Amino acid sequence: MKHAIVVIACALATSASAFAAEGMWTPDNLPKQELQAKYKFSPPAQWAEHVQHAALRLAGGCSGSFVSPTGLVLTNHHCVNSCVQQLSTAEHDFIKSGFYAKQAGDEVKCPEIELNRLDTITNVTDRVKKATAGKSGEEYSNAEKAVKSDIESECVGKDSERTRCDVVDLYHGGVYDVYKYHRYQDVRLVFAPELAMAFFGGDPDNFNFPRYDLDMGVLRAYENGKPAKVADYFPFSKGGAEENELTIVVGNPGGTDRQLTISQLETTRDVDTLHALLRLSELRGLIEQFRSESAEHSRIAQNDLFGIENSYKALRGRLEALQDPEVFSVKRKQEAELHDFVDADPARKAKYGAAWDAIARAQTTYRNIEIPYQFKEGRGSFFTRYFGFARALVRGADERKKPNAERLREYTESRLPSLTQQLFSTAPVYPEYEKVKLAYSLTKMREWLGADDAFVKDVLGKQSPQALADELVDGTKLADVAVRKQLWEGGSAAVDASNDPFIALVRRIDPQARAVRKRMEDEVESVVDINAELIAAARFEKYGTSVYPDATFTERFSFGEVRGWEEKGKWVKPFTEIAGAFARATGFEPFALPQSWLDAKASLNMNQRLDFVTTNDIIGGNSGSPMINRDAQVVGLVFDGNIESLGGDFWFDERVNRTVAVHSGAILEALHKVYKADRLANEIEAARKH
Amino acid sequence: MKHAIVVIACALATSASAFAAEGMWTPDNLPKQELQAKYKFSPPAQWAEHVQHAALRLAGGCSGSFVSPTGLVLTNHHCVNSCVQQLSTAEHDFIKSGFYAKQAGDEVKCPEIELNRLDTITNVTDRVKKATAGKSGEEYSNAEKAVKSDIESECVGKDSERTRCDVVDLYHGGVYDVYKYHRYQDVRLVFAPELAMAFFGGDPDNFNFPRYDLDMGVLRAYENGKPAKVADYFPFSKGGAEENELTIVVGNPGGTDRQLTISQLETTRDVDTLHALLRLSELRGLIEQFRSESAEHSRIAQNDLFGIENSYKALRGRLEALQDPEVFSVKRKQEAELHDFVDADPARKAKYGAAWDAIARAQTTYRNIEIPYQFKEGRGSFFTRYFGFARALVRGADERKKPNAERLREYTESRLPSLTQQLFSTAPVYPEYEKVKLAYSLTKMREWLGADDAFVKDVLGKQSPQALADELVDGTKLADVAVRKQLWEGGSAAVDASNDPFIALVRRIDPQARAVRKRMEDEVESVVDINAELIAAARFEKYGTSVYPDATFTERFSFGEVRGWEEKGKWVKPFTEIAGAFARATGFEPFALPQSWLDAKASLNMNQRLDFVTTNDIIGGNSGSPMINRDAQVVGLVFDGNIESLGGDFWFDERVNRTVAVHSGAILEALHKVYKADRLANEIEAARKH
Repeated sequence: MKHAIVVIACALATSASAFAAEGMWTPDNLPKQELQAKYKFSPPAQWAEHVQHAALRLAGGCSGSFVSPTGLVLTNHHCVNSCVQQLSTAEHDFIKSGFYAKQAGDEVKCPEIELNRLDTITNVTDRVKKATAGKSGEEYSNAEKAVKSDIESECVGKDSERTRCDVVDLYHGGVYDVYKYHRYQDVRLVFAPELAMAFFGGDPDNFNFPRYDLDMGVLRAYENGKPAKVADYFPFSKGGAEENELTIVVGNPGGTDRQLTISQLETTRDVDTLHALLRLSELRGLIEQFRSESAEHSRIAQNDLFGIENSYKALRGRLEALQDPEVFSVKRKQEAELHDFVDADPARKAKYGAAWDAIARAQTTYRNIEIPYQFKEGRGSFFTRYFGFARALVRGADERKKPNAERLREYTESRLPSLTQQLFSTAPVYPEYEKVKLAYSLTKMREWLGADDAFVKDVLGKQSPQALADELVDGTKLADVAVRKQLWEGGSAAVDASNDPFIALVRRIDPQARAVRKRMEDEVESVVDINAELIAAARFEKYGTSVYPDATFTERFSFGEVRGWEEKGKWVKPFTEIAGAFARATGFEPFALPQSWLDAKASLNMNQRLDFVTTNDIIGGNSGSPMINRDAQVVGLVFDGNIESLGGDFWFDERVNRTVAVHSGAILEALHKVYKADRLANEIEAARKH
Repeated sequence: MKHAIVVIACALATSASAFAAEGMWTPDNLPKQELQAKYKFSPPAQWAEHVQHAALRLAGGCSGSFVSPTGLVLTNHHCVNSCVQQLSTAEHDFIKSGFYAKQAGDEVKCPEIELNRLDTITNVTDRVKKATAGKSGEEYSNAEKAVKSDIESECVGKDSERTRCDVVDLYHGGVYDVYKYHRYQDVRLVFAPELAMAFFGGDPDNFNFPRYDLDMGVLRAYENGKPAKVADYFPFSKGGAEENELTIVVGNPGGTDRQLTISQLETTRDVDTLHALLRLSELRGLIEQFRSESAEHSRIAQNDLFGIENSYKALRGRLEALQDPEVFSVKRKQEAELHDFVDADPARKAKYGAAWDAIARAQTTYRNIEIPYQFKEGRGSFFTRYFGFARALVRGADERKKPNAERLREYTESRLPSLTQQLFSTAPVYPEYEKVKLAYSLTKMREWLGADDAFVKDVLGKQSPQALADELVDGTKLADVAVRKQLWEGGSAAVDASNDPFIALVRRIDPQARAVRKRMEDEVESVVDINAELIAAARFEKYGTSVYPDATFTERFSFGEVRGWEEKGKWVKPFTEIAGAFARATGFEPFALPQSWLDAKASLNMNQRLDFVTTNDIIGGNSGSPMINRDAQVVGLVFDGNIESLGGDFWFDERVNRTVAVHSGAILEALHKVYKADRLANEIEAARKH
C-alpha cells in the first residue's frame, strides 16, 4: 500500500492543479478556484473574515473558537487538562470528577491559559528583507531579531495587555507577515467532562479510529471581570456533520515539514525525532512508575504523562514515515526537480543554486551542537518548573535593561505579557514531584554530555543528581508567587541580591547557555533562514502562489469532507455512535466509562453520532479547532488524527489521512442528558437563534 | 575524523593482507603468518590447545578462565552480579558489601551459572549441507533443525550432565562445526568486591576510559561436590601488562554484524536497534523510579537495571554507527565489490547472483512480523520470571514427547540440562517486582500490537494490564521450586492438570506464539540461512580462508597490544593507576569508593596500574575474558571496550577501537591489601609456581 500512497503524495506536492483536500491555507489566501471546482463552494463576502475572527488560538499550543456572543469558548479537554489539574487538589480531583460551573459565578480562572483572536494580517516582507539584505551569520541573526522586535513593538503600540503581535515567517522566508491578535488572559473554566470520557481508550486508542471520546472543554473569555462580548462566533448547526458534507477546519496547525530539504529531513529523522523519543520514553517509564505509587502521585503527574505519551506516539509515527525508504526517494525526486529548474537557467543558478549545500552544511553544525544545545540552553537538564521561573527572572532582569530590538526574542515587550502570565501563575508546584523530574534530568545531562564535561561539572560539582535536586528544591522559595513577583519587579537589584539556589544556578550557567544558543542562531538558524528564503523564492518562480506554506502555529483554513477510508482492505466507516462506547467499555482504565455515563445510559440516544472522521488536512496544534459547515456553523470539534495522519508532517495523502472530531450532536446530547449542564447547553443553542 | 576511520575500515575489510589487530579467530584457524609478521610470535606446539582448554564460557553470556589447578575461575563482577544478587537478602546485601569465602566451606553455589570448557571442534559442514540440499522454506527449516539436533545428540552421547554439544554456524553458513564442551553446573561464588568498586563510575563511565574499576569476580568449578581438578589453567604473570606488549584475548564474543548485507544492516538500524532502544529506555525509567522507592526495591532491581543500562548504551553506540551515512556508503561499496565479482562470471552469477535480493525480500517479511514475533513468541509481553517457568513447563511437556530431531531447538536433549538449571534455580523471586514488570510489559503488548489485536484480546480479555498482572502473580505457585520440579517431572499429565494461572495463560496463547515463530523460521530465517550460505561461498571464492567469521558466542582468539589512542586530538594513555580512583571519587554513587578502599588507602601502592586498554578486537560476550601474554599467563581481565569500540559490531578500526581490562597487578594488590583475601590470592599466586 505504501508505494501507491507515495505516488499520490508526490503528484499532489508537485502539481498544484491536482487539488485535493490537501492544504493549510492562510486566511488571506484561500484556494477559491479549487473550492468552487471541488466543493461548489464560493465563500460569500465577509465569510472568511467572520470565520477568522470567530476562531481562536490557545497560546499554549491549541486551537478553539467562540460559540456564543458572551465569550463562550469551545476547545478540547486535552487543551484544558493542565488547567483542570491546576485547579484540582488532593480532595477535589476535577480530572476524575469533571468540572461544571452551575452558576456564572462558579466559573474559575485558569492560571496559565491565554487566548488569541487574529484580528489583522499585514505583509512586512519588504521591510524584513531590506533589514537583512546582504548580511550573514551573527549580523543576519541580529538584524532579523531587531527588525522583528521593532515591527511587533510598533504593532502592539501601548496596549500590550490586550494586543499581541507576532511576525510570522511563511514559506520559509518567502513571506513575512505581522499577525495582530486580540489577547485574552482572563480565561475561566466553564466545563470539562471526566478524563475517562474525554480520553476514553487513553493512550492505546490515541490516534486511532473508530473512537469514542468526548474530548471537549469549555472556557469563557473575560474582559474587565465580565464575560467578553464578541461579534463573531460559531453557532452550532442543527444536526451536526453528515457524510460527504464539506467541512472546514479553522485552527492553528503547529508545524509541518513538507518543504524541508533532504538534509533537514535527515536531521529530523536521525537527531531530533530519535533523541526526543529516547528521552521521552525513559521519562514516560519513570512517570508511570511514579504515578503508580499513590493516588496523589497519579493525580499530580497525569497531565505530564498525557503530554509525553501523546508526543511519543506522534513522534513514533513521524519516525516510521521517515524510515520508509520510499519517502526519501520521493522527497529526493521533488528536490531534484526544483534543483534542476534552478540549474537550467544561469541567472537562477547563480542566485539560488548553492542554497541546498549551504543548508546541508548547517545541518552538520547542528548535529555537532544539538546535544549541548538541548542540555545547556534547552530544558534537557532542568526538567522542573523552578528552573523555568529562575531563568525567566534572571534573564528577564538582564534583558529588560536592553533596548527592545537587542533582547532575546522571548523578552521583547510584545512577549512579556505571555511570559509574566506563566511566571505569576498560581498553579500549584509539588516539591517531591519536582525533585523526581529534576534528579532525572540532571542524570540525563550527565549521561548525554558526559561526566567529564565542563558544564556538567559546573552544575553538579561533587554532588549526585539526586542530592543536588534535593538541595535545590528544599532551598528554593520560588514556589511562592509573591517571591517571584517581588524578584521580577525588583529587576536586577533584587535578582542579584537573591540567594535562592535556583537563581544562583541559572546565574552560574547562563553564560554557557547563551553561548551555545548564539552558535545555534548564528551558525545554524541564520544559515538555514537565508538559504530557505532562496529556495522559497525559487519555488515561487516555479509553482507560483497557488501553494500553501508549512504550518507555523498560526491560523489556517483546511477544506475537506466527511468520509471513511480503506485500511488493510477494509472500509472504516466515518461515524461512531454512543452505543459503541458502551460496547467497548471494560470497566478498567482507560476503557472504563465514568459513572455519570453509566447512570445516564437509559436516557441516552444510543444512535447519536459520537466521533467522526473527515479528509481535512490538519496537524498537532489543530486540537480544539472548530469544524464548521459552509454556513459557518459548528458541526464538530477536532481533537485528533488517525495513525495515518502522522505522516502528514511530510505530505498529505487524501486516501488515508483523516481528521478525527467529536460530533456536535454528541456534545449537546451529553451536556443535556449526562451532565445536566443546561445553563451551558442553552447558551450554545441560543447562539443559533441570534 | 569519521571519514578517515571509514577508509581504514574499508581497507581492512576488503584486503586480508592488510592485517591489523582486527579479527576474532576460531581456535582451529589462527592467523599464524600474520602473528609472525606483526608480533614476531609463533605459538609453540600445543599452545593453542592449552589456551583453548584453560578458557571458559559462562553459558549466560560471558567468558572466563581457569586460574588454578583446583578449578578457580576468574571472570567479571558484572558476569557474577546476578548470582551475587540472588545470594543476597534484605539483611545481607553482597552487592553492597562484597562477598568473600574465607574458608573453602564458605563457597556458595550460584543457582544459575553454567561453565563450558571447549574440548573439541569437529567439522560437520558436509553433513549439514547434504541434509538441507535443494530444500527451502519449511522443509529447509525442519531439515536443518533435525540434522543439528541429531549431530548434537550423537556428540553428547549418554553424558548430557557433563557434556554439551552445539552445532555452530560460521561464516553465515560457510562452515558448520560441532563444538563439544565440558559442562560445569556446580559453580560456586568465591569472591566479589563491592559493586561500588567493581563498577566505580557506574553507567556514566561505562564504555569510557580512563577508568577505575575492579570489575572482577571469582568462582570455582566443582565436580562431585569437590573443587574440579583441571589440567589447563592460566597462571598470573609476574608484573602484569606492559605498554606495547602483545596481548591475547581468549573469549566468547557474542555476535558481530560485519558480514551482513545492506538490507540486513538496514533492518538492524530501523527495526531491531530502534525498537529495542525504545522499549529499554522506558523500562529503564520505570525501574529507576522503582529502585528509588526503598532500599529493598533498589537491591532487588539492581541487576536488571545494570543489564538494561549496559544494553542501552551499547545499542546507542551501534545505532550511531549505523546512522553515519559514510558507514552505509562503505558497506555498499564492499557489497558491490563482491556482487560484481559474482556477476563477472556466468557460472558464479547463476549460483550466487540472486542471494542479495532474496535476503532483502526476507527482510521485508521480517519487518512485517517482527513486532508480533517480539510480543507473541519473544518476551515482549511477559517480562516476568513466572512466564519463563510456565512456558518451559508447558512446552517442555509437549516437546519431550516428540522425537529429538523434531523438537523446538531449546528442548532437544543436549539443551535440557541448561534449561532445567534455569527452571530449578533457587534464586528468589519477588512478587511485587514481578507485578511491576509484568503490568508494564502487558501494557507495551497492548500498545505495540494494538488494543484490537486478537492476541491482545486473548491475553487481557476485559482486564487491565495491572489487574491481570496482580491476578496472575497472586494466583501462581511457580515461585516454589518444588512445584516446578513436580510439574516438570510429571510431564503432560501434571501440566494439563495444573490450574496455575501462568500455565493456563501459556497454554492458551501457545498456538499463536508457535505460529509466528514458524513464520519467522520458514519465511525469514531459512531464506536468510540459504542465501547467506551462498554469499559466504562467494566470499570464500574471492578472499580464500584468510578471513575470520562473524562472532557467534563461541571461543575466539584476538591478538593486540597495550596501546593508547588519540581522541579529539588528545592522546589517551593506556593505563590508569589506583591513585586515579581516589582522585575521581566524590562520595556519591556511582563515584563513591567503598569503605574498604578508603580504609586501606594508606597501605595501597597508589602507582599500581588499575585498568588499561589494548588494541584487541572484542565485542559483548568477551566480558570476563582472560587477557594473556605469549607465555599464556594472565596480564589482565577484559571487562569493557571504549565508546569507539561500539562501532566494532560493523567493523574494526585499530586506531580508536580499544579493549578495556583490569590489570592483573591490581587484582592481587586489592585481594591482599583491601580484602585480606589471602587464601584466594595465595592460590592464584601459587599457580604460577606449579
